[in-house]
Amino acid sequence: MIQKILNSTKEQAIQDYFKLLSFPSVSSEKNYEKALLECADWLQEYLKKMGLKVQRWQTPGQPTLFATYEKDKSLPTLLIYNHYDVQPIDPLDKWESPPFEPTVKEGQVYARGAQDNKGQLFSVLWALQALLKKEGTLPINIKLCIEGEEEVGSKGLAAILNEKKDELKSDYLAVVDVGIPDRNTPAVTLGVRGIVTMEVEVCGSSTDLHSGTHGGIVFNPIHALVKMLASLRDEEGKITIPGFYDQIREVQNKGLLSLDFNLEKYQQIVGASPTGGERQLTPFERAWLRPTLEINGIYGGYTGQGFKTVIPAKAYAKISCRLVPDQNPKRMASLVAEHLKKIAPPGIQVAVLIHSGGGTAVQANPSSKIVEAFSKSYAEAFGTECKKVFDGGSIPIVSELAKTSGAEVVLVGLGLIGDQIHAPNEHFGLDRLEQGAWIIARAIELLGVYPGQLHENDLS
Amino acid sequence: MIQKILNSTKEQAIQDYFKLLSFPSVSSEKNYEKALLECADWLQEYLKKMGLKVQRWQTPGQPTLFATYEKDKSLPTLLIYNHYDVQPIDPLDKWESPPFEPTVKEGQVYARGAQDNKGQLFSVLWALQALLKKEGTLPINIKLCIEGEEEVGSKGLAAILNEKKDELKSDYLAVVDVGIPDRNTPAVTLGVRGIVTMEVEVCGSSTDLHSGTHGGIVFNPIHALVKMLASLRDEEGKITIPGFYDQIREVQNKGLLSLDFNLEKYQQIVGASPTGGERQLTPFERAWLRPTLEINGIYGGYTGQGFKTVIPAKAYAKISCRLVPDQNPKRMASLVAEHLKKIAPPGIQVAVLIHSGGGTAVQANPSSKIVEAFSKSYAEAFGTECKKVFDGGSIPIVSELAKTSGAEVVLVGLGLIGDQIHAPNEHFGLDRLEQGAWIIARAIELLGVYPGQLHENDLS
Repeated sequence: MIQKILNSTKEQAIQDYFKLLSFPSVSSEKNYEKALLECADWLQEYLKKMGLKVQRWQTPGQPTLFATYEKDKSLPTLLIYNHYDVQPIDPLDKWESPPFEPTVKEGQVYARGAQDNKGQLFSVLWALQALLKKEGTLPINIKLCIEGEEEVGSKGLAAILNEKKDELKSDYLAVVDVGIPDRNTPAVTLGVRGIVTMEVEVCGSSTDLHSGTHGGIVFNPIHALVKMLASLRDEEGKITIPGFYDQIREVQNKGLLSLDFNLEKYQQIVGASPTGGERQLTPFERAWLRPTLEINGIYGGYTGQGFKTVIPAKAYAKISCRLVPDQNPKRMASLVAEHLKKIAPPGIQVAVLIHSGGGTAVQANPSSKIVEAFSKSYAEAFGTECKKVFDGGSIPIVSELAKTSGAEVVLVGLGLIGDQIHAPNEHFGLDRLEQGAWIIARAIELLGVYPGQLHENDLS
Repeated sequence: MIQKILNSTKEQAIQDYFKLLSFPSVSSEKNYEKALLECADWLQEYLKKMGLKVQRWQTPGQPTLFATYEKDKSLPTLLIYNHYDVQPIDPLDKWESPPFEPTVKEGQVYARGAQDNKGQLFSVLWALQALLKKEGTLPINIKLCIEGEEEVGSKGLAAILNEKKDELKSDYLAVVDVGIPDRNTPAVTLGVRGIVTMEVEVCGSSTDLHSGTHGGIVFNPIHALVKMLASLRDEEGKITIPGFYDQIREVQNKGLLSLDFNLEKYQQIVGASPTGGERQLTPFERAWLRPTLEINGIYGGYTGQGFKTVIPAKAYAKISCRLVPDQNPKRMASLVAEHLKKIAPPGIQVAVLIHSGGGTAVQANPSSKIVEAFSKSYAEAFGTECKKVFDGGSIPIVSELAKTSGAEVVLVGLGLIGDQIHAPNEHFGLDRLEQGAWIIARAIELLGVYPGQLHENDLS
């Protein structure tokens, strides 16, 4: 029944999805702000047309759209989290089609946000539209929380969470912003890592210097930077910063991992070998259950065409740490910053800017109703057992949203490792857009009649 | 007499110098090529008007202007080397006045090339004009070799040197492209270091990756790059690349150094401490008589405003080595390149592009006539003993030009450590422009009557 409705509404849905993708709602760069707000306007209107009650929450940052469908107070309430902002598009020259003009190639839609998170968000909207079309109503209470600053740390929404506590109160929280291990393997995600980000500035002189006149005299700040950064990990891949692992138990929840790392497929998809991180752990343990420190950007000196024999005054790095439960973002960033200052070579000044907007890690209750409902929905959609996994990424707002709403959390979605989110040529399959809508609709129905009054053929 | 003529021609000279500075003749970037050729056109015409015979040598790169004044074959011939190309202007936002609009502040002319090398070149042109005005002729034969690719390694001129061997044949070669230790200390420069430059590309995956999903799995190429680069020098500041010091004797010509390093002044001028390079040597020994390896640029990942949680596919560095006599540029670059490939971490591919246009080091005969003539001229101009120094920079063409011309070489000029050549806000004093012209004119007269028939007051 749901599938029939999805079939009959597909053309319009894709059109609406493409419209959503056409807004360059990049949250990290000021000059995209107008486009981001236009995206919020369009979405606000769209949610209203769907029959939801819509609030536009002003925040110290970008607005959050909060849309509700109140069925009956005695029924459970599901809060669904998504975001309408996207990552920057740089490097633009690597895109094979314009990032804000959705382009379909072999069933895949290429655009910034095609998957993360506009594609997954649209699956939610399509699911609700299909359920409303089917019954004229929804089986439970629904609250949508769609924010505009996920890619920059959700500062705005985080700042107003407490004052919105009553409105956010829910039984379940589904964060529709993650993926599955591969196209044939369904999985619910039980946790994401926390994150904190910072920028390091290393200064060696008051002005750029000629590398002939001064080479051998001054300490080149690029040398200082590479020396300092290289010293942050040992030969075993462990972070050497004192206290980095102090707050955490050795590899938590290892027992839950039911998925094997497929080396051949990984190499094929990302063209890389799993040679990073801590040597004695498996790739998934490293990416899901352990903290990391990654250099996400480095620059200094002459980086243009040709050559310039300069010793720059300064050199810079952008660093992020992914965190696991019990690691506090601020405390971890301070550890890193203090250590970097401590190991500066003589003659070198170090400044560290810790970005606000970090977040703690989340790990879900693996036997909650929301985990069970989605596991069942996924299993039906794929015709195979649903795995339990984690995600190495971070959705900083999730732990706070779970706390504030009082809800049991699960993370779901149909992202794939090859979707190139946060990279050029991000894409999402139209088949997954539709399957995502089916899975969400089915899970909502399951939550409405739980435990088990629903038959397979009700949803056929 | 010369001084009087310089006084009377000053206004026109400054006007002509400013015109020369107004051409953005940046040789390292293709989009400046038209301006560079316009600069050559203007200079060609200017030399002709001075009464010189001018040839425009086409090369595989940019043209070299070759201008001669043939006095008498029995008299000595002085070849003077300069260049009309300049360094890039990046970072433009650090310039306090437009780099190609000469701006005078407190007697200093601010412009790209104000000193390196258009200022020093103009001192030569002004000196010749003054001598011609004084006597209607010059005391010796003069050859000017003014090239357009010094800042990118002089490839064009180097390629045609052999076919121009007869024309370049000279007794003396004055390279007017260096400096003095400070405004009150005259010095002739007995040598420059050689140089070779290269670019390193480190690749970890076939595409940029999300640092959450992949952080801890792949080897981040920025981590690989900093680890590799950091390992290139030990705690004593020595380069660790096997064979790096094999070709050289321990600190050559140390005995010639007659100048003390002024720590306080150095810190004041460049805002840096002399904490780089080999610990057991003095700053001047390190900069003048020892090879270095400097990272002149590094980049990878996200370097824009804000933050992007990316693990880039690739990271890059630009590296130069300064060389001392007996070190071959190609051989040294190969050493570095092979070593970098050898120390690549597992899963990381390394490619090294060695730039052509490197040059060997030069060390002059400290008791040649040309060294003596300039030492005397400097001493008279400053009223104090002329020091003998070296320059840590490189003028790759000098050793080949000395070989081809068969001339005894000296390096001269009035550059100061605070001139910010190769950096934003490059500048040169109008007092030095004029004093430079005087010193060159005087040295030419000394070479004409050598040994010692000239009296002080002939030049008053």
